[in-house]
Amino acid sequence: MKSKHFYGVILAGGVGARFWPLSRATSPKQLLRIAGEESLLKATIKRLRPLVPLEKISIVTNSTQAETIMTHLAAGVGARDKKKSRRPISRPCRPEIIAEPVGRNTAPAIGLAALTLLKKDPEAVMAVLPSDHLIGNGRTFLETLRAAERVAREGRLVTFGIVPTRPETGYGYIKAAKGAFKNVGKIKVRRVERFVEKPALKKAKKYLAQDGYYWNSGIFVWKAKTILEEIRLHLPGLYGNLLSMRRGADVKDVYKKIRPVSIDRGVLEKTSNIAVIEARFPWSDMGSLPSLGEVFPPDRDGNVIKGRVVDIGSRNSLIIGSDRVVATIGLKDMILIDTPDATLVCPKERAQEVKETVEILKKKGCMEHASHLTVERPWGAYTVLEKGDNYKIKKIRVEPGRRLSLQTHSRRSEHWVVVSGRARIQRGEETVLIGRNESTYIPRGVRHRLENPSKTKPLEIIEVQNGSYVEEDDIVRHEDDYERGF
Amino acid sequence: MKSKHFYGVILAGGVGARFWPLSRATSPKQLLRIAGEESLLKATIKRLRPLVPLEKISIVTNSTQAETIMTHLAAGVGARDKKKSRRPISRPCRPEIIAEPVGRNTAPAIGLAALTLLKKDPEAVMAVLPSDHLIGNGRTFLETLRAAERVAREGRLVTFGIVPTRPETGYGYIKAAKGAFKNVGKIKVRRVERFVEKPALKKAKKYLAQDGYYWNSGIFVWKAKTILEEIRLHLPGLYGNLLSMRRGADVKDVYKKIRPVSIDRGVLEKTSNIAVIEARFPWSDMGSLPSLGEVFPPDRDGNVIKGRVVDIGSRNSLIIGSDRVVATIGLKDMILIDTPDATLVCPKERAQEVKETVEILKKKGCMEHASHLTVERPWGAYTVLEKGDNYKIKKIRVEPGRRLSLQTHSRRSEHWVVVSGRARIQRGEETVLIGRNESTYIPRGVRHRLENPSKTKPLEIIEVQNGSYVEEDDIVRHEDDYERGF
Repeated sequence: MKSKHFYGVILAGGVGARFWPLSRATSPKQLLRIAGEESLLKATIKRLRPLVPLEKISIVTNSTQAETIMTHLAAGVGARDKKKSRRPISRPCRPEIIAEPVGRNTAPAIGLAALTLLKKDPEAVMAVLPSDHLIGNGRTFLETLRAAERVAREGRLVTFGIVPTRPETGYGYIKAAKGAFKNVGKIKVRRVERFVEKPALKKAKKYLAQDGYYWNSGIFVWKAKTILEEIRLHLPGLYGNLLSMRRGADVKDVYKKIRPVSIDRGVLEKTSNIAVIEARFPWSDMGSLPSLGEVFPPDRDGNVIKGRVVDIGSRNSLIIGSDRVVATIGLKDMILIDTPDATLVCPKERAQEVKETVEILKKKGCMEHASHLTVERPWGAYTVLEKGDNYKIKKIRVEPGRRLSLQTHSRRSEHWVVVSGRARIQRGEETVLIGRNESTYIPRGVRHRLENPSKTKPLEIIEVQNGSYVEEDDIVRHEDDYERGF
Repeated sequence: MKSKHFYGVILAGGVGARFWPLSRATSPKQLLRIAGEESLLKATIKRLRPLVPLEKISIVTNSTQAETIMTHLAAGVGARDKKKSRRPISRPCRPEIIAEPVGRNTAPAIGLAALTLLKKDPEAVMAVLPSDHLIGNGRTFLETLRAAERVAREGRLVTFGIVPTRPETGYGYIKAAKGAFKNVGKIKVRRVERFVEKPALKKAKKYLAQDGYYWNSGIFVWKAKTILEEIRLHLPGLYGNLLSMRRGADVKDVYKKIRPVSIDRGVLEKTSNIAVIEARFPWSDMGSLPSLGEVFPPDRDGNVIKGRVVDIGSRNSLIIGSDRVVATIGLKDMILIDTPDATLVCPKERAQEVKETVEILKKKGCMEHASHLTVERPWGAYTVLEKGDNYKIKKIRVEPGRRLSLQTHSRRSEHWVVVSGRARIQRGEETVLIGRNESTYIPRGVRHRLENPSKTKPLEIIEVQNGSYVEEDDIVRHEDDYERGF
């Protein structure tokens, strides 16, 4: 079933600020477990794997997110779902990471990925997939993908056009030219007539009634060679920059000169060598918080309510709670998202402005724009329980068989109390094993390492840090299983 | 200035469920610091003291709240305002507590207080004050109270009628009879024509325009003898029960027979021996959350916003945040109250239904209806930072010079790490002094006591409890400075 020259390129450079407070700068939308056990990114990889093996999948992101994504793929555990995170880790899944120095929208990212593939395989066909979309019915997805690959092999650009199921005003549309261009099995492939910007409701209703209008999914399949040729034709500046990188120019320097442009605007809207393949799987671009409403079936009042929520008489509202209690009365067409350290409330129709909220938080220096209280690490996760002037309390969870780096702190000491599992602790020259209800002390400046020696049980400790400075960057790593910065 | 026979009776038996999540069953509305440093109850006491010394003030509450109120009055520190609670404690303020076995509305509470006063002083004049009202301009309040006492001494029931400042539909009104009954200094005292239920807006506007309509404040002044006589006339059943208590019948048994009735409905609306004194101080009954809007001046969009709130374009809304980030966009006439463990959102016009929310939480067994994460104790306060299956993490704050009880836990052990100040710790036979960044361990079953020996600096420790059961009731107190249950 797998085709020799077929590759996956997953675009994962965004933050998804419109998903705040679920998303944070260090915990972008594609890493959220929105619909089930797996993050959108992992689900994207998994969906692809029956056709593309892991070693042929690459993830394009930027250098600030690369480590976060590697950690996420290595860890298999996460912040949001306590019950799930207690499960043993599934085997690690690590596609290649292509890290752009800075994000420059999709055209440069796709160009760079095409360039990278072409070096390995001149006949490479690449499926380009956003990392943060919600897609149902994997079988139909795969059938469509397989058909698209066949068309792409012939040198066409293929876009996935989702068959509309409602008069959606939040998506761009693709208008197919009249008459079928080709059928692959039962799947229609048509020539693209034009791209249509997000329409008003009246137009959207018209599009729904007529044949040949599709939602532009942002999923594409083409040969690396073909897209580079199209970039040469329509974005010659970008093409020049890609060429100079191929000739060995410093990627950072080149990226400074690249201007941001999307593949849609830069290439697809200009070329005539483009087809749309009719896609019939459930799809959402998860563009902003109201998209969450598509993930879960609404109750009879039109609400989607999750978490520890007590509601009286709300309607058509999206209320996503957490472990905290959220009480709502009489909300109408509202969104409420609650996380341990931040809560958002807004009308659905103003959900786009969440992005501005994040900007304000950033300007004010509020760390809630950047990270969650619970932070994933390759060895597990930690949660900040409390922070004072000269102390910080953390709950630290180490997955079975994993260990933190061998490290030193110059400005804080640490008290550790085990509350679950067993810990192997290296402290200076000695190594001790302590169990539940036992404690130890790591003086300032002493080299130490925390390890979970169990093969099955997670280790949980409470850490009380005392010191003149208790931030994350007071750390010197001497050895690390995950090759993080020293 | 103080009159020999003048007493204060403060009614403090309510929970104020409509103030949830600020109020909790163990942290009722009257104990909240709503407008400044002091709780509504303490402010009520303080307001009264220029006319009534502490030893002549009694607080009527029910037996479940009596200890909470005693703790509150003893502690002088509290849960909600961290900065304030770091101040040294003001001298303890402990009026007499009259604890009803169960609440039976105001008539029995006032009857019981009158009975208690009459035993001490046959000429006692009692000012009856709710504990949870917001009152401004203490001087005018005292002048009004002094005048009311003079009228009450002549054997009349005196009600405080607040001069309306807006067409309020949330209060009951008192209609004064035409013509002044009497003037005490500059203060008008008039005969009451009738009591008026909460009016519709049209009527409220009419009342505002006319002379002689007052808000019924629920503040009363009368002789203990007079009100008992009126109870005899209008509530003979209650009178009989009060008499039997005076003759030594068991209070619990008698209370079972008493039917709940308010003093307004049971006596004031029936008697003709009743005057209204014109009160010109700012007043709010703090009946439900929108009353908070009266405490603070609104911004130019009509919002009252407190705490770590990022708002974009809300109007006429009340947004009370906490240390967590609350982000709001485009709220209109809404209330949002955020506390560390619970958040409420509702339209202002449905604020009354918060009471139902609390009922639902109670039925579901959610402890958020009952207590805050931070709990006041006579020695300071503790905050639950985290709770797992077999462990609990607390931050414990001990005020200078105070100590916890000498205690034992049969099902948990405790690790203590000092993060601020110094601790004197009694553990079995030994006593140790430990400072910041030092720790100790209290094994299960070992008698121990935590003390802050400093005269000025608070002590803060992090406690990690481990055990098969980590609830508050696993405690045996051997000695206690605050005479709490053993």
